[in-house]
Amino acid sequence: MSNPDAVLARMREYMVGPTRFMILHACFELGIVEALRKESGLTAADLGVVVGAKPDAVEQLLVLPLKEGFVARDETTGGYTLGSLADVAEPDLQRVLTFMGMIKTGMMRQLYYLKDSVSTGRVVGLEELYGFEGTMFEAAAVVPEVRAAWGPLARSETASVYPWFFSSFDVPDGARVLDARGGNGLGAIMTCQLKGSPGLRVTTFDRPELEAECRKNFQAQGVAEQCDFVGGDVLESLPGGYDVVLLKHFVDMYDKDEVLTILRNAHGALEPGGQVVVLAPVYPEDITDPGDLQADFFPAYILGCVVGRGGLQKLSAYRSWLEEAGFEVTKVSAKDPAEIPADAIINRVVICATKRD
Amino acid sequence: MSNPDAVLARMREYMVGPTRFMILHACFELGIVEALRKESGLTAADLGVVVGAKPDAVEQLLVLPLKEGFVARDETTGGYTLGSLADVAEPDLQRVLTFMGMIKTGMMRQLYYLKDSVSTGRVVGLEELYGFEGTMFEAAAVVPEVRAAWGPLARSETASVYPWFFSSFDVPDGARVLDARGGNGLGAIMTCQLKGSPGLRVTTFDRPELEAECRKNFQAQGVAEQCDFVGGDVLESLPGGYDVVLLKHFVDMYDKDEVLTILRNAHGALEPGGQVVVLAPVYPEDITDPGDLQADFFPAYILGCVVGRGGLQKLSAYRSWLEEAGFEVTKVSAKDPAEIPADAIINRVVICATKRD
Repeated sequence: MSNPDAVLARMREYMVGPTRFMILHACFELGIVEALRKESGLTAADLGVVVGAKPDAVEQLLVLPLKEGFVARDETTGGYTLGSLADVAEPDLQRVLTFMGMIKTGMMRQLYYLKDSVSTGRVVGLEELYGFEGTMFEAAAVVPEVRAAWGPLARSETASVYPWFFSSFDVPDGARVLDARGGNGLGAIMTCQLKGSPGLRVTTFDRPELEAECRKNFQAQGVAEQCDFVGGDVLESLPGGYDVVLLKHFVDMYDKDEVLTILRNAHGALEPGGQVVVLAPVYPEDITDPGDLQADFFPAYILGCVVGRGGLQKLSAYRSWLEEAGFEVTKVSAKDPAEIPADAIINRVVICATKRD
Repeated sequence: MSNPDAVLARMREYMVGPTRFMILHACFELGIVEALRKESGLTAADLGVVVGAKPDAVEQLLVLPLKEGFVARDETTGGYTLGSLADVAEPDLQRVLTFMGMIKTGMMRQLYYLKDSVSTGRVVGLEELYGFEGTMFEAAAVVPEVRAAWGPLARSETASVYPWFFSSFDVPDGARVLDARGGNGLGAIMTCQLKGSPGLRVTTFDRPELEAECRKNFQAQGVAEQCDFVGGDVLESLPGGYDVVLLKHFVDMYDKDEVLTILRNAHGALEPGGQVVVLAPVYPEDITDPGDLQADFFPAYILGCVVGRGGLQKLSAYRSWLEEAGFEVTKVSAKDPAEIPADAIINRVVICATKRD
């Protein structure tokens, strides 16, 4: 893109990004789409009564969905009907709305402080909005609004990712598995359920304050005999003597020096020949790939809304960092493209690597 | 767009809109682009020192500009250079950055409250952020942050619009002109300067609290003899006896019933055969026109960030409303497309109409 007009036109696209998002979101949030799903042909006046807004405002909000063909309008009656939105299956729509809800609550206002977050390495948006110092994950534990926005997305993502993740690597019979930053124990529980074998033992490693909840979940799921909890910080050290170390969903929340520390700690936690399994979204090797929107999303999400540091890397970067930390990559798995919905922003891989020396 | 995957892919585009905008804005705001303009080949480490941020974060923010070709990177040295951004002329870039600055400060956080603004007809974002009840224009008078974001954009827009506006209609010699909602008197002053004739008299009509500032501006510009100020509300009534009534930059801030009231008040203010001149942005007649981004921007801007009501209309709507209020449209002027920069979102017209009965 070297024609100055093309650059200016592209910047214009950027400038309408926030409004496009919020107009569409408001149409769902107000219940306009739902009302049209229930009854076709409602006018702006009808819709105004249903959703509790002035008809003029409803009409304005619907101009963009009309432009997109998401809804249609009969110019004679003024009645609206669902357009292309009617073709989207309900579970697909719900998945998108869950993501959109997180963007609205967890990002729109926080993004205003992106520059400050980058300068300070802290999520300034959380401090400004909630007086909370820490990450969005930590905030979700104590701020109801953050939990309400993040919780449903986390569940939706987990449901879509975990079955595929656990099918992407092998756990030897009777192995000892360490789930680093394993949170409330879900990874350990699923390891028992999906990779079970006689003698299998799984340890969830995370901040000590998570121990009680984690052990309660082990009990509830009937895996307390096979599972244990160890408290600590992945940047300090990991316990030793394991055959498999899982690093799920978090290396992208650290900068390079920290990722290397974590990988070295994983190396130390493994027996000779042991395996580390990394689950992470990765940038495409060709960053100009227009089909991959992670560059458009993640830097602002991770730096400005979630942790104030870190970010995605290319697979080649993780490969070289794993080698630097004493591993040899043995297998990389990506999701079957046919199983990735068209609205998906995140593109994760599973990297298996063996302790080399 | 009837293929469900096309709809989902389009919603994905919407979801990355806010982050795209803020990532690019942060690159300018932090001074990264400026640093690369001054010196080519700076690495993330160099840039981190210059802009005061961790190199890892700088690298993350630059992934999207790399994807766009806005910047380039030498993979051997890790040095960044300006890509296509280097081709954009400085005044063009400054114009875009002025608009982007308003979007960041005047919209990003406010947009979060769009649904609430639509439900209440008030700019809830201004209430939540500043405890201010009223419009963004009113807030700009008392909230420094709002003025800082809005003022430069208003000046930039005025400079680009007013010369064209005043070339788009005739003022008879010795006419009496009423500039409805004429604010601080700029419209009256320019009428004297650009449409002057012996006997010409111009009245600025607006809220009484603007009188002092307006008269001071008349004095400073040497037009106090020809200009007057009358205080009042355009929705109540306008003073009478005029040959020309100017309705600049504000009919899009009112709903249909209010616009009709204003047009009828303008009708009452005019002598037989008098002329109303409306300056307003208009939606394209074919709302699906992909080259027009006003549907993508204005509903959220006007409802959620500026006045909490109103919105753009098509030219055909204004035409029929003018007829309904007793006018006959005599001339419609649009800007020469060659003079509209590629980043422009707003597309204004000047509508001249004569009092018919």
